[in-house]
Amino acid sequence: MDATISRRIFLGVNAAAGVGMALAASQASRAGAEEKGAVGVGIVGVGGRGSGLLGLLLGMEGVAVRAVCDIIPERVANAQKRVIAAGQAEPEGCSRSETDFERLCQRDDLDAVITATPWEWHTPVAVCAMKHGKYAASEVPCALTVQECWDLVDTSEQTGKPFMMLENWSFRSDNLAVLNMIRQGLFGEIVHCHCAHSHDCLSHWYHGSAKAWAAKYLTTHNCDLYPTHDLGPVLSWMDIGCGDYFDYITSTATDSFGPRDHYTRNFGPDHPLAKQKYTQGDIVTSVVRTKKGKTLVINYDMQLPRPYDNRWMIQGTHGLYNEQRNAVYIDGVATDWDPFPPYHEAYKHAWWREGSSADGHGGTDWLELKLFVEAVRNKTQTPLDVYDSVTMSCVFPLSGESIAKGSAPVQVPDFTRGKWETRKPYFAPDDGKFVRPGAAPVGRTEDGMLTQEFALGLRTPEVQLPGVSLRFTGDPTPHAGWAAAAGQPSHCMFAAEQWGIEIGVPKGSTGKVAVYAYDLEGVRKQTVVFENREPDRLDDFHKGVWVEHAFTAEDTEDGLLRLTVSKAGDVGNCVLSRLRVAVAE
Amino acid sequence: MDATISRRIFLGVNAAAGVGMALAASQASRAGAEEKGAVGVGIVGVGGRGSGLLGLLLGMEGVAVRAVCDIIPERVANAQKRVIAAGQAEPEGCSRSETDFERLCQRDDLDAVITATPWEWHTPVAVCAMKHGKYAASEVPCALTVQECWDLVDTSEQTGKPFMMLENWSFRSDNLAVLNMIRQGLFGEIVHCHCAHSHDCLSHWYHGSAKAWAAKYLTTHNCDLYPTHDLGPVLSWMDIGCGDYFDYITSTATDSFGPRDHYTRNFGPDHPLAKQKYTQGDIVTSVVRTKKGKTLVINYDMQLPRPYDNRWMIQGTHGLYNEQRNAVYIDGVATDWDPFPPYHEAYKHAWWREGSSADGHGGTDWLELKLFVEAVRNKTQTPLDVYDSVTMSCVFPLSGESIAKGSAPVQVPDFTRGKWETRKPYFAPDDGKFVRPGAAPVGRTEDGMLTQEFALGLRTPEVQLPGVSLRFTGDPTPHAGWAAAAGQPSHCMFAAEQWGIEIGVPKGSTGKVAVYAYDLEGVRKQTVVFENREPDRLDDFHKGVWVEHAFTAEDTEDGLLRLTVSKAGDVGNCVLSRLRVAVAE
Repeated sequence: MDATISRRIFLGVNAAAGVGMALAASQASRAGAEEKGAVGVGIVGVGGRGSGLLGLLLGMEGVAVRAVCDIIPERVANAQKRVIAAGQAEPEGCSRSETDFERLCQRDDLDAVITATPWEWHTPVAVCAMKHGKYAASEVPCALTVQECWDLVDTSEQTGKPFMMLENWSFRSDNLAVLNMIRQGLFGEIVHCHCAHSHDCLSHWYHGSAKAWAAKYLTTHNCDLYPTHDLGPVLSWMDIGCGDYFDYITSTATDSFGPRDHYTRNFGPDHPLAKQKYTQGDIVTSVVRTKKGKTLVINYDMQLPRPYDNRWMIQGTHGLYNEQRNAVYIDGVATDWDPFPPYHEAYKHAWWREGSSADGHGGTDWLELKLFVEAVRNKTQTPLDVYDSVTMSCVFPLSGESIAKGSAPVQVPDFTRGKWETRKPYFAPDDGKFVRPGAAPVGRTEDGMLTQEFALGLRTPEVQLPGVSLRFTGDPTPHAGWAAAAGQPSHCMFAAEQWGIEIGVPKGSTGKVAVYAYDLEGVRKQTVVFENREPDRLDDFHKGVWVEHAFTAEDTEDGLLRLTVSKAGDVGNCVLSRLRVAVAE
Repeated sequence: MDATISRRIFLGVNAAAGVGMALAASQASRAGAEEKGAVGVGIVGVGGRGSGLLGLLLGMEGVAVRAVCDIIPERVANAQKRVIAAGQAEPEGCSRSETDFERLCQRDDLDAVITATPWEWHTPVAVCAMKHGKYAASEVPCALTVQECWDLVDTSEQTGKPFMMLENWSFRSDNLAVLNMIRQGLFGEIVHCHCAHSHDCLSHWYHGSAKAWAAKYLTTHNCDLYPTHDLGPVLSWMDIGCGDYFDYITSTATDSFGPRDHYTRNFGPDHPLAKQKYTQGDIVTSVVRTKKGKTLVINYDMQLPRPYDNRWMIQGTHGLYNEQRNAVYIDGVATDWDPFPPYHEAYKHAWWREGSSADGHGGTDWLELKLFVEAVRNKTQTPLDVYDSVTMSCVFPLSGESIAKGSAPVQVPDFTRGKWETRKPYFAPDDGKFVRPGAAPVGRTEDGMLTQEFALGLRTPEVQLPGVSLRFTGDPTPHAGWAAAAGQPSHCMFAAEQWGIEIGVPKGSTGKVAVYAYDLEGVRKQTVVFENREPDRLDDFHKGVWVEHAFTAEDTEDGLLRLTVSKAGDVGNCVLSRLRVAVAE
């Protein structure tokens, strides 16, 4: 995946956070690399992807890049120059042969080896690194055969050295917020998941450069060639490896239609790429059933023209998250989709609350590398371990086996050797206190009243104030995820002309009602009328304004408070973002 | 499915058309029922669904409902009253036993028998009707076993009587527009499809009423219980039965988690429904591979809480339609998703251009019944035939067989007996002339210039004027599907402050440039500057305004015309909907 695409994906969700964090990252002291206790890192493969990782490592405090390896000497030289330019000592260059990574792994001054070679070298390099006592990390997928999966597991277990596949999509802020929601029980017990890696890579990858090493897979394989980006978050969402595990997989591939069509249209029917026979089907659909009777659907979709997509959907007994709709549904809370962005905000993961970097696929590359380096420094387990890594990657060979057998079910080896039954979920722990949007807890005002605040724009505010109920009149359109300035709520309700709120309260009660109005564009004018009070005229609420009124026992004789908002200018709708109700006991 | 849900689904796409059409339908002469040549219809099963179909039939010209059958006598009596109230003779009532439909089928005055019984009676009634020389139609699914599929095919072939399953989602305006797009080649060769019937029916269906006859399937089956709504449109999209056919299917079910959780939460853990053992998995994923190497994924999803969804995605070598995103992508036209609504409008099917009714699932029930009745009257083939009907329904038994065999692939019988290889697509023919949004053809102005008009807001207008090119400056946000008043384009481009269009034209050429500005809300003020002309100030363009300028050879000395639109009021963006360029030859 290229940075352009991921940046675009992330712009909507993380732009504000990312920018600040990039600053923090660039301020990190590069001098720290030569300090006592710096983590010594070797990088194998410094092409496009390895160069990106190198750049991130050079921006991290306390990391020393001491060796670089690539079969292309120019790349090694270029990487060495970059390390020197970053204020570190010249790293050793290893470029003598395809197996010169062995010399790199033998160095005493390395704590970890990171691999970003073509796919077929991921396992050999990582195994070699672990055998020489190094932490190992590799790009995706980490293994292409079941034997390679076992090689990684066996070596890690025998050497005691952790191995981590650098699956960055496990570290996306949206996916981690969904993980928090799952762990908070919002979706109930998870039952089913759909995920896809829909990414047109014909030009981008397979034949996009002179060194398009991946192209050969289109003419030699027929399987899910790239299952880890979609599976990354799913593993933690479904507790795969920690409470459940893959049981069997069936895979079905289409024939290959895309490449021939693409190359014929672009280069003519006589071009070798148009005439070539492609073994790899355009779309591969794999269905996994787990030991606990859950299912997940995985789609490979990388050689037809289309926008990037992951099509995540995770569904449980109480609701679901649907990435394509950018929406969630939670039973009993709403009767239709609720926008995801307020949930993303409310359940933001500690890793993103605390800060990250916008560098590298929306900050995910930086985050996964930072956490990997921390694990190396602290001699702890890596955030994704060897079992996670091979469980994601094994879909590559097993899908191929099922396809070759006419979609027959293929048993998934238990790479955890039974540990999945007792292991507890360990990925991305977060002890944050979360409050569902629209479900702010009941509190107390300074003068001792019970009070609760509601986000308007989500479908159903959850009223917990005793004796209080809410009803909307005038059919306001719930509209959350409205673009909002920093610090402003991203919720609002609209109606064309006029709408209102009826607040049921105990008869004869006293208290206060307040509404918050905020107008991003600064063009609206509206009036708010509470009960029989003088209208509050809002002529400029670009920066947000609270309108509060006390209510008396006389107001609540009928147990109902009425609030109406009407447009008072040229703009055809009127908005309120929040409602606060306080009732004296 | 209930009317509430489908109405909601359709509101966005068909509301305007549907309202007018309902009027037309209700004006149809009911007296026509007793005219010579009226189509005589018998209805078997007049519960919820049958009653709805009865109401539609009673509103149609030239249809006489002459017999009704139901095991519950009160329903028969009620149906008889409705027929009489509609001005027709009292229909015979058949309610003596479960097989009293045989007496109905024997009547000489019926041309067609329509079945809306519980599932298990669909095939027996339809077979009986055909054997007695009647056209037959049944609700979905039409068959529950492979033998029933063959019974329908054999009987239809032997008697020469058409059979049609009333799969209404095949008749949706959006799905038919997608079919037109496919047949116009916009997506290239179709490769893959995903579809789902995601509809929480636990309360609605399975245990929602005293006569919840479907509930027993949850404790006796484990298969895709309801595959036809999602498959309906897919069959025609993929030419299944007319050029391609299902080869084999694999199906994987989750265990049952939803019902127990639902009933425990709602009725407590000791309620019989909470303690019952459910055999039917919550989610069933079936993957079909076709004879021509295409695949389709079918999801049953009817017992977990969630909003209604069909999750259609149909993907080809040139692009795809994604229902969840309400978007299309067409290679070479855009670099990202384009909104679907302008395409829906541009490729609207003849059946919806000509008029339909909003009654019954957004007008689809009315349309399918109208077309069925027309086929009966004209003694022609029904719009969906027996092969379509059983091909959709056979997923019920075959998915169950695959699940029982641990997801082993199951061969799909060729119910067409080889006819799929030679049959031509026949469903929903439409000889309309379609023009892709953004690709208006080149025409001539009154003064003989070549001219073309472009919809702004779709990603890339297709320029076919010789020597002309377009480039947008200032990064305007393409925004189509904008709510628009009647007769106004639903396309617009936005930018925060200022944006522009650079129009490449032949050097030294002369001609005209015009832009159309339209502001739904009527609050924007903006200026348009063309080349070195005086700015055109637009202070009120609520109803739309064209701004036109002629250009001279002097303007085109550098081969480039520049047009800038800037905000001139308080509102933070400025809009243009259309661009028209004319060049003198």
